[in-house]
Amino acid sequence: MSKIDVGIIGASGYTGGELMRLLVNHPHVNIKTVTSRANEGKPVLTLHPNLEGVELEFSNPDPSDVDCDIVFSALPHGASMKLVPEYLDNSMRVVDLSGDFRFSDIKTYEKWYDMEHLHPELEAVFGLPEINREHIKDANLIANPGCFPTGGILSSLPIVEEQLVDRIILDSKSGVSGAGIKPSDNTHYPTCTDNIKPYSICNHRHTPEIREQLRNFGSGDVKVSFTPHLVPVIRGILTTNHSFLLKSDITADDIYNLYRDYYKDETFVKVLDDNRIPLLASVRGSNYCQIGGISLDDEDQLVVVSAIDNLVKGASGQAIQNMNIMFGFKETDGLDHLGLYP
Amino acid sequence: MSKIDVGIIGASGYTGGELMRLLVNHPHVNIKTVTSRANEGKPVLTLHPNLEGVELEFSNPDPSDVDCDIVFSALPHGASMKLVPEYLDNSMRVVDLSGDFRFSDIKTYEKWYDMEHLHPELEAVFGLPEINREHIKDANLIANPGCFPTGGILSSLPIVEEQLVDRIILDSKSGVSGAGIKPSDNTHYPTCTDNIKPYSICNHRHTPEIREQLRNFGSGDVKVSFTPHLVPVIRGILTTNHSFLLKSDITADDIYNLYRDYYKDETFVKVLDDNRIPLLASVRGSNYCQIGGISLDDEDQLVVVSAIDNLVKGASGQAIQNMNIMFGFKETDGLDHLGLYP
Amino acid sequence: MSKIDVGIIGASGYTGGELMRLLVNHPHVNIKTVTSRANEGKPVLTLHPNLEGVELEFSNPDPSDVDCDIVFSALPHGASMKLVPEYLDNSMRVVDLSGDFRFSDIKTYEKWYDMEHLHPELEAVFGLPEINREHIKDANLIANPGCFPTGGILSSLPIVEEQLVDRIILDSKSGVSGAGIKPSDNTHYPTCTDNIKPYSICNHRHTPEIREQLRNFGSGDVKVSFTPHLVPVIRGILTTNHSFLLKSDITADDIYNLYRDYYKDETFVKVLDDNRIPLLASVRGSNYCQIGGISLDDEDQLVVVSAIDNLVKGASGQAIQNMNIMFGFKETDGLDHLGLYP
Amino acid sequence: MSKIDVGIIGASGYTGGELMRLLVNHPHVNIKTVTSRANEGKPVLTLHPNLEGVELEFSNPDPSDVDCDIVFSALPHGASMKLVPEYLDNSMRVVDLSGDFRFSDIKTYEKWYDMEHLHPELEAVFGLPEINREHIKDANLIANPGCFPTGGILSSLPIVEEQLVDRIILDSKSGVSGAGIKPSDNTHYPTCTDNIKPYSICNHRHTPEIREQLRNFGSGDVKVSFTPHLVPVIRGILTTNHSFLLKSDITADDIYNLYRDYYKDETFVKVLDDNRIPLLASVRGSNYCQIGGISLDDEDQLVVVSAIDNLVKGASGQAIQNMNIMFGFKETDGLDHLGLYP
Repeated sequence: MSKIDVGIIGASGYTGGELMRLLVNHPHVNIKTVTSRANEGKPVLTLHPNLEGVELEFSNPDPSDVDCDIVFSALPHGASMKLVPEYLDNSMRVVDLSGDFRFSDIKTYEKWYDMEHLHPELEAVFGLPEINREHIKDANLIANPGCFPTGGILSSLPIVEEQLVDRIILDSKSGVSGAGIKPSDNTHYPTCTDNIKPYSICNHRHTPEIREQLRNFGSGDVKVSFTPHLVPVIRGILTTNHSFLLKSDITADDIYNLYRDYYKDETFVKVLDDNRIPLLASVRGSNYCQIGGISLDDEDQLVVVSAIDNLVKGASGQAIQNMNIMFGFKETDGLDHLGLYP
Repeated sequence: MSKIDVGIIGASGYTGGELMRLLVNHPHVNIKTVTSRANEGKPVLTLHPNLEGVELEFSNPDPSDVDCDIVFSALPHGASMKLVPEYLDNSMRVVDLSGDFRFSDIKTYEKWYDMEHLHPELEAVFGLPEINREHIKDANLIANPGCFPTGGILSSLPIVEEQLVDRIILDSKSGVSGAGIKPSDNTHYPTCTDNIKPYSICNHRHTPEIREQLRNFGSGDVKVSFTPHLVPVIRGILTTNHSFLLKSDITADDIYNLYRDYYKDETFVKVLDDNRIPLLASVRGSNYCQIGGISLDDEDQLVVVSAIDNLVKGASGQAIQNMNIMFGFKETDGLDHLGLYP
Repeated sequence: MSKIDVGIIGASGYTGGELMRLLVNHPHVNIKTVTSRANEGKPVLTLHPNLEGVELEFSNPDPSDVDCDIVFSALPHGASMKLVPEYLDNSMRVVDLSGDFRFSDIKTYEKWYDMEHLHPELEAVFGLPEINREHIKDANLIANPGCFPTGGILSSLPIVEEQLVDRIILDSKSGVSGAGIKPSDNTHYPTCTDNIKPYSICNHRHTPEIREQLRNFGSGDVKVSFTPHLVPVIRGILTTNHSFLLKSDITADDIYNLYRDYYKDETFVKVLDDNRIPLLASVRGSNYCQIGGISLDDEDQLVVVSAIDNLVKGASGQAIQNMNIMFGFKETDGLDHLGLYP
Repeated sequence: MSKIDVGIIGASGYTGGELMRLLVNHPHVNIKTVTSRANEGKPVLTLHPNLEGVELEFSNPDPSDVDCDIVFSALPHGASMKLVPEYLDNSMRVVDLSGDFRFSDIKTYEKWYDMEHLHPELEAVFGLPEINREHIKDANLIANPGCFPTGGILSSLPIVEEQLVDRIILDSKSGVSGAGIKPSDNTHYPTCTDNIKPYSICNHRHTPEIREQLRNFGSGDVKVSFTPHLVPVIRGILTTNHSFLLKSDITADDIYNLYRDYYKDETFVKVLDDNRIPLLASVRGSNYCQIGGISLDDEDQLVVVSAIDNLVKGASGQAIQNMNIMFGFKETDGLDHLGLYP
């Protein structure tokens, strides 16, 4: 199989670096173009020092001068919306890692992102392979899910489909790489470490993304609350999914079996046996989502825990998984390494 | 005012060390006895190296040979239950930091702690000054609250008293010092850092403690779910309190005002203005509980956040606060220092 | 004893915050003025959230409008040099925490700080009480030592005075608070944590400061090399002092006795018995310098280790210690609390 | 090329886990046997939860029942010495990760390891490919280097060969995984984090290993001092190599060129351009050794910095590199992934 040419648009950040880290060893990929307006002409290792030995440098081409089979857009929302159509027009397929194309309801987008959508006409497939694999195969534009929605949705699907609950509280703990490569007060080591920071309480943009997917998916109208926390961890999102069973004759074992069956054919979703609890350290650097710790208390509370690496299954790894599906590669190509533990 | 003689029983652990750190500078206290069976004869700095210069060593006396005005028991539950009565019989007042005397319903204790209670006849006051100050004054036996219940209850009291909610989900994130001074797999640095570990899901012993207090306190029968997480932080418990308003005409500002009024006379509970969010780093090493981040989403979810230092307001500091109340000292004596930020 | 009025100039940073944290409980101090040009009118807790309850706000007065007995200048070097003379002219005593007045040899200053010194005529006392206590008493201008020099010099004095070595290698590991309150790539959590960064190798500005003090102090011309490292720690500098004994009949015990005797009257320098090793965690938040781990190998290498809190003994605590000496207070006033361990 | 059968003896610890993590994706390896006396019958993921999906369990066979082409011994020293000869006798090649076979001078081993060597007759090749590649090819027994010696020796070779220095001070900072999988006071999170612990000062067992290799290698008799520090990092050893040039007409650029030329054909040793400084975060999880930060001060001090992942280039990765050389595989097989940054 010959290699496809890949471009990474806006490759100076963590998701860009992670795409390169993973793609340099992909058996069917040639990284042809990596762009960064601010870093044009610099070797990629100036921003991503782990890429020592990778002979790539940032360029700043016009979209019309890019000639790839697929581009990943790692631009911020708003910026991505402007450029993605140009790549599509030039016959390139696109996986967009921003929030710009994730909503089928444009009004929701415009309300939560507080900007007008420039291309409401573009149809994207929400790139969570576990729910949309068939649509992803033929898509030209994939909206790669947000990091919180990935772990939040995967931890909720079986109980939403079975209509076992009508309200879900997602309490998520995210590593600081989720805040991006740019330093800020929130990511300043002396106050970021040895600390926990809830943020965007009741108004984080991933809330409507999770709600839309779960409501499209379930038949009912499940309510979803979402609260993110910044934790002193580099990578990873652990989501504690709290809900309350509507039926009383269900055991924790039943729920475990439900999840295990639901994901039995999914390579990248591991439902843990023996009630083991997912750990960020088990999925660090890998594309796996672990689900476990399934428990019920005597007041009908159900807890389910999921763990992902926010930069891999929560962003760049999932983007590559989508690409693999789009081009008929093995879904695990470039993604078959295990987590870095410890 | 002359000084009182204080003993610390089981002083080898973190709460024992913390009692010494705080009491050496208390204006009305003489630390007379610090006990540790395993460390008899050793200077305290062998276990607590910050106590360099403090001329105390561990002893292992019979309770009948201890002659103090008050003893703090920092023994584990079960062990504490055996010794506390002897100190009481010898006319010493006791603040017990274990779980042994926290329950008015002995059956709850015996079920959750899985052991027979040896002294169901002993009456203790639950030592949360913010609800029991008047009873603490004259008590001979104080059951110092658990670390999670302290922050969990303080974050819940106003909405429970007002019966604004009928179910509370406490998602707590605890620093590792809460696991004690003894090394274990769970506290081993390489897997404890850069990680988040939910544990005792749906079966942590602090659950019934929180439930009993909130139900005694409120008139209704609020349901409480509690899920603790071990986070890579030395000290501190941040509790994210999720609930759902039963009435729909209440704003986040109303809730803020409710909390501010409720705690307006409490020195050690700070309700933060301007919707600032409590931080572990703000209370590190101090006896303060910060409450803030009060928010409502459009599906009636209410979030309230509390932060304490688990070893201070969550254990040793609160124990000293109780002692101050018992002996008529200023409630802030020995506790008037600020958090260590950064 | 009545209280003195104190001002803190440039109080928005970590050393400013730390001065407030320590001075609010000082028995003889009234904090009268805290300045910050950029934060004029804001409560101090907006930048230092541990100061919740401290009713101070930043002002931006002309030096001529400040009326204090003493001001601490926590301005950056260069800026401090401009303002300090105005405070002196207005009859205030000054402790300057910048590098501006630390050098008796102005040429050294101008070479290493790469700027012209505006006030070479001003005479300052280098504020390391352990060598200059008598001069500090009457000084109007104290140059508070740098954080690295404090631990580096204290770990070297006895062997330099005794001329036991002619070359010292100081390999220092500093917490990130030493980089200040302003976020930067170097302090960005995702790459700052789980990492060690040597920096300013062979050209850090504290090198000449250490050299000048040790050469003034010893009779010989000891060579000093200094290499700082940024380590994922909030506070603290651990300095590993490597040297090579010029005489061969000396044991590690001899060196230990030399250090113990040398510092036997110093409250804030603790030479640890039993070859215990200083730990950042033992001095966290306190004004102590611990010295220990004294060892010799079979190729004449001597190792001595020192540990301080860079923001306390390495900056604000030492500044207060200097103030206490200047005003005849007890040297431990406001500084008598122990380290926060764990 | 058919696959070789590989055994891992003593696979319950971190180096065992790391061998599995890396070998499951090695193109020419079949992991046949993984042993652990204490964990016989358990799936490997009970100890190494990142190995979810790897269908291996611990066994406890007699060496005579193991039938592999090569075994890696990850046993502790002393234990390894007893079993390794049995594997050799059964015609298996062995890479031993303990210290048992690293010394050509058995007396040095017996003095520093404080035990009698049971098999002084066995000849092993010191498995640092950068100095012994040719001997490794045909060896049946490889003594895989210690973690500190790997980075310490690689940072010293060029200046030792050129006899530019006669004394080297290695100040090393090691991640906590170097202490192994077993919890202890030293690795207990609350005191291990936010702290730096020098240890084994002047008497660490890796000292004589470094000395022997550098003295065998250079023609002169370079003195070497070595001081390790435990730093709050999971993986990685950063070594700051301090020395003093014997000749005065050499520049930092000359030294840089010397290192670059020296390692120009080595895939896994990267001498960084532009005086960039090696970072643990750049080599995390990878087999690379980065060397850089080469600087000279005005008192002839030379600083060279090296960074490795202690579990990979410092242990299991290097062991696989040795295996690749022994069996004629590509030296990068199974080791071609990049560091995990951030």
